[in-house]
Amino acid sequence: MLQSPNDVAQLTPTLEAARTASVSLASAPTELKNKALKLIAQALRDHVAEVVTANGADLAAGVTNGLRDGLLDRLKLDEPRILALADSVDQIALLTDPVGQIVRGSSLPNGIKISQVRVPFGVIGVIYEARPNVTVDLAALALKSGNAVVLRGGSAAENSNRVLIGLVQAAIIDAGLNPDSVQTIDPFGRAGATELMKARGYVDVLIPRGSATLIQTVVAQSQVPVIETGAGVVHVFLDESATKEWAIEIVHNSKTHRPSVCNALETLLVHRSAAERLLPAVLAKLAASGVTIHADARTRSIYPAAVPATDEDWGTEYMSLDISVAIVDSLDEAIAHIRRYSTGHTESIITNDLQNAERFLNEVDSAAVMVNTSTRFTDGGEFGFGAEVGISTQKLHARGPMGLPELTSTKWIVRGTGQVRA
Amino acid sequence: MLQSPNDVAQLTPTLEAARTASVSLASAPTELKNKALKLIAQALRDHVAEVVTANGADLAAGVTNGLRDGLLDRLKLDEPRILALADSVDQIALLTDPVGQIVRGSSLPNGIKISQVRVPFGVIGVIYEARPNVTVDLAALALKSGNAVVLRGGSAAENSNRVLIGLVQAAIIDAGLNPDSVQTIDPFGRAGATELMKARGYVDVLIPRGSATLIQTVVAQSQVPVIETGAGVVHVFLDESATKEWAIEIVHNSKTHRPSVCNALETLLVHRSAAERLLPAVLAKLAASGVTIHADARTRSIYPAAVPATDEDWGTEYMSLDISVAIVDSLDEAIAHIRRYSTGHTESIITNDLQNAERFLNEVDSAAVMVNTSTRFTDGGEFGFGAEVGISTQKLHARGPMGLPELTSTKWIVRGTGQVRA
Repeated sequence: MLQSPNDVAQLTPTLEAARTASVSLASAPTELKNKALKLIAQALRDHVAEVVTANGADLAAGVTNGLRDGLLDRLKLDEPRILALADSVDQIALLTDPVGQIVRGSSLPNGIKISQVRVPFGVIGVIYEARPNVTVDLAALALKSGNAVVLRGGSAAENSNRVLIGLVQAAIIDAGLNPDSVQTIDPFGRAGATELMKARGYVDVLIPRGSATLIQTVVAQSQVPVIETGAGVVHVFLDESATKEWAIEIVHNSKTHRPSVCNALETLLVHRSAAERLLPAVLAKLAASGVTIHADARTRSIYPAAVPATDEDWGTEYMSLDISVAIVDSLDEAIAHIRRYSTGHTESIITNDLQNAERFLNEVDSAAVMVNTSTRFTDGGEFGFGAEVGISTQKLHARGPMGLPELTSTKWIVRGTGQVRA
Repeated sequence: MLQSPNDVAQLTPTLEAARTASVSLASAPTELKNKALKLIAQALRDHVAEVVTANGADLAAGVTNGLRDGLLDRLKLDEPRILALADSVDQIALLTDPVGQIVRGSSLPNGIKISQVRVPFGVIGVIYEARPNVTVDLAALALKSGNAVVLRGGSAAENSNRVLIGLVQAAIIDAGLNPDSVQTIDPFGRAGATELMKARGYVDVLIPRGSATLIQTVVAQSQVPVIETGAGVVHVFLDESATKEWAIEIVHNSKTHRPSVCNALETLLVHRSAAERLLPAVLAKLAASGVTIHADARTRSIYPAAVPATDEDWGTEYMSLDISVAIVDSLDEAIAHIRRYSTGHTESIITNDLQNAERFLNEVDSAAVMVNTSTRFTDGGEFGFGAEVGISTQKLHARGPMGLPELTSTKWIVRGTGQVRA
């Protein structure tokens, strides 16, 4: 490639090793990649105690450093979560290998045959924080899709990540693949992350996962193409005709099932004609689960226990047991509110009105738009992708939950018999 | 969207108008978009003389300003080219509308139905230079794919572009669509281009088309996601077993058919065992068409009329009747040379050896890899896409010729009946 590499002096050996590994990994047989994945899953099961101990050190440091509850929850790896991680790696081994898949193809009028086939990107960079599960998920997804990966997992999870990467690399060696396929640059600290963002020509795509601040920093500073995995200011709209039972259960599930993740509900909008019928029961069930309700004046007149919502609340991704609630006069007003405050992640309408459902699906411009389901379903695992790379809130390349195909590029294979252009 | 728009003061009215237009255009019926396209094609045919006159002023200024021949050729719009442009707009009207296409979908085990549908990006920015055909191509492709477009066509083509955009907007009004669907920011000069690159939150994707310098500037400076349409340091490799007639015709066609475009051949590599058999005839035919041959020492010993190649030649996109030629010892050496100097656009092997063909297709990492055809076939029109947006040399979102589907994003439509996540 005709690139003028920037100054990535510290990282150069790591990045060159990644590029070398990527060339052999690109043509590694699926069988061999699956073998590595199964060995990784087994290693996780065999070393639960070791991972829990390392993670315990990170959690203790997190408490000392005043990490918020939502972040501590994301940081935590207990035995059930480690076993679930191992299962998801096994599931990735079962998924179809995207490399070599033919996306489309045709015969041109002159007899030339063209086909567009999936190929690995090459080297993927990941910058994330306080999410050691990402280390395993991304290593496994990158491996299966034939990509080398360079991970920057941040200081909050450094003990967990060191142990996890050690297990992953050992498994890769056992499978007979190049261990540089999965590398960490955590030892280089923040300077490493900065260099990774400049590593155009070495790194084909950079994926940030974490807080809105982290993602915005990477988007603004990176010279490597970025897939933005986004914050979720997620909305549910209770339409005039919403079934009460569904409203109660879907709002409760969307908010409380796992409040620290990006598909959790943050803002509830309610049609004024349904507010008195629905809100008392919907909000009572939230309150019973410990949710703090930040509400506009109209909502407070129906549900006085709520605290007043500030202007800031409407754009806040709480990632905690907090919710903002507003009453709107119409579907149009709900859509306008969402257009203004949504981060384009997930929005759901609860309704029995077919026209309103279709308008919501068409006019709300988010990665996932839903009718009558919990927002928690915007998830690679739920969508059947195996583990997920993240949920893209940008419009380029991938939008919504990203699985294996989203970790590939394509190339055009053109076969002729001497044709020239007339 | 939760964006903190940067300072795009000058462009704000234009960009807000584009966004407003994009909302209605996203749901415009295909019939209406096709009507606008047919009116654009007709307007081009009805105003050939006007376009030629405006283009003449640009060409005269180009000559005065010392524009290179390759650029003058790209700048030129004569009657046949204008009629061809009109035909390509008509062809775009005949293409399937990508908006609303279902890419994939499934029923989840819990009964939820998910489908991934194509939606327009919203607003597309294009920065290009000295290519007035891009004005029409991009306006037509954006319109058909439901996107508003903001064009920055540069000073070298300003007269041509002003007339063309006038014709396009008039046709859009006649069709009953919002004329802000296609806007130019040329009146804002370079400052407009700079602001366009900062217009995150207003512009969903930015496409640079032009010189390597222009593209690198946009890639490095843009905060809006970029689709890189790349320079082409394009290679043909004549393998040991290449059919002589194919070698002669394909090299000649790849180099001389239209030397100013990105899929034109720049470097010819020849297996040493085939050099004496093939090179005299291949190079003589090039020379007869006025091609200057920049060759390594081994080639010059066979073909003494060549000028010595410098180190710089191997990485140069001449865009003129020049070619660099080297003899290599093996397929491995050819692949290594391509890996080092290629821009990842198009490479073709001329061979009768099946294993070598497969190795070349697998190991050369370019947007298009070919066997026994002219590199000139890497083209949206030739691939059957209608006019093309450009040829992407990046790996994200689109690679190779980009047609209508490459101008769309997707969203997930999720339909349930009260499901919550367990």
